Amino acid sequence: MTASALDECTVAIVGLGLMGGSLGLALRGHCAHRIGIDIDHGGEAGAIEAGAIDEFAPLATAAARADIVVLAVPVRQVALLAGDIAAWMRPGRVLTDLGSTKVDACAALDSVDERIETIGGHPMCGREVSGITHADGTLFQGARWVLSPTLRTTEYARALVGELVDAAGAIAVDVDRHVHDEAVATASHLPYVIAQALAGTLVEADARTSGVAGRLAATGFRGATRLASGDVQMWLDVLATNEANVRTSIGSMQRHLADLADALDDAERLEHLLRGGRAAMETARTIDRD
Amino acid sequence: MTASALDECTVAIVGLGLMGGSLGLALRGHCAHRIGIDIDHGGEAGAIEAGAIDEFAPLATAAARADIVVLAVPVRQVALLAGDIAAWMRPGRVLTDLGSTKVDACAALDSVDERIETIGGHPMCGREVSGITHADGTLFQGARWVLSPTLRTTEYARALVGELVDAAGAIAVDVDRHVHDEAVATASHLPYVIAQALAGTLVEADARTSGVAGRLAATGFRGATRLASGDVQMWLDVLATNEANVRTSIGSMQRHLADLADALDDAERLEHLLRGGRAAMETARTIDRD
Repeated sequence: MTASALDECTVAIVGLGLMGGSLGLALRGHCAHRIGIDIDHGGEAGAIEAGAIDEFAPLATAAARADIVVLAVPVRQVALLAGDIAAWMRPGRVLTDLGSTKVDACAALDSVDERIETIGGHPMCGREVSGITHADGTLFQGARWVLSPTLRTTEYARALVGELVDAAGAIAVDVDRHVHDEAVATASHLPYVIAQALAGTLVEADARTSGVAGRLAATGFRGATRLASGDVQMWLDVLATNEANVRTSIGSMQRHLADLADALDDAERLEHLLRGGRAAMETARTIDRD
Repeated sequence: MTASALDECTVAIVGLGLMGGSLGLALRGHCAHRIGIDIDHGGEAGAIEAGAIDEFAPLATAAARADIVVLAVPVRQVALLAGDIAAWMRPGRVLTDLGSTKVDACAALDSVDERIETIGGHPMCGREVSGITHADGTLFQGARWVLSPTLRTTEYARALVGELVDAAGAIAVDVDRHVHDEAVATASHLPYVIAQALAGTLVEADARTSGVAGRLAATGFRGATRLASGDVQMWLDVLATNEANVRTSIGSMQRHLADLADALDDAERLEHLLRGGRAAMETARTIDRD
């Protein structure tokens, strides 16, 4: 018999960094039991102390006992771990992930042991900090949580993971894996690439102005570059698994920058472009309020 | 006789938008009297109601009575107004401005009636809102306020405007007009141009993904594009008076983006670039804590 509702489930969380730890905290009281595994980093003791998990266990043991396994590891590790973990799980149980890109992760979830049900997931939130010490049970509140179907997705798997998303306070959004990766290339990965490029640009301007540019970088600048402080290893994983889409987004960005540069000496054209960009931002804010 | 300290001064603020209104509020109790003038917009009644000024008067009258005149108008209007206002002021009185670029504004302040003392100014703060209704006496708290000398700057003018900067809670930084404009092209104007280009890029990605890109734009994206909501007319003034430097900054940004795009299929090179950008951001934060 498979538990039919989250509150009867044992949830195993693989990876106890910011995301896994925060999910553990968010699920407190919403599931029967939380087991944590932090393969390389040994964060289990900290996670128990923080109240993010109830116990820790070796990966195979945890997988065998769980009704839901959540892979909260960098996206390239999802592909490495999914097959083994599924093989340890009991038939009819559900495997999902929190990976930042979905084409590669869903391909791994497509091809696991056919007795296991899978669905890809990506909570659209994040911080520029990492690790269990920054775990926060409210991290997912109000965030969109993409669910991408795999060849192993059943109605049951979608419903159960949907319950988990609800319990975390997030909003489930069903999105095809390819559409997801193309969308986040611009909505999420490009802002990181831009923050990185802007940081490099400031270093050059700082050299040209004997340090004045850095001293005059005000609030607007810090808002625009905040993302560059993110965990490099995590971002290398993200960019490596979404290379073609990110390249397309950077190309689009380069064309818009060139248009603006060309219009700098044409007041009418510049005003047209700036009003268009401002209107686009207003539209984006309206969408966000849905 | 010239009043020797701010608390004996009558301050005239020309322009009662966000900056002028906020300055009026910040100076409450720090000067003898505050006169406001809002040439085209008729914001005087609102400014009195908000407590930002004590009275309003026609421009010529206010200039004749003031010990300090602060031009809180878009930067291209500084050049249009400075000569006339100086001609109405009494000998030995001080004229300054809050313009976002300093080469053009200081050129105007160089060439006013030689009995008037002048110094260029630029408080490095701002909001994505405008108008007297958003005026805030704490707007300048902790911000850097650039002071750029003109041909009419005396020790007295520097000291008196320095007192005004202190009273507003800001930190005076003496910077040559050319160095200022080169520095802010990257530290302040480029982030706006980038936010604009990013907004345009999102519109394209949104069309390619049937609206998914816009729906998935999370916190990081909104932080990166917040500046695009700024007042277009104000930004047209800023960009028009700093065209060459902004063009240089956009060029530098485009080279950094191209480097990152080129490195997407070279993990070692990409990691090197991302670690460099992250370190640059950490350095920028340290500078900011000075």
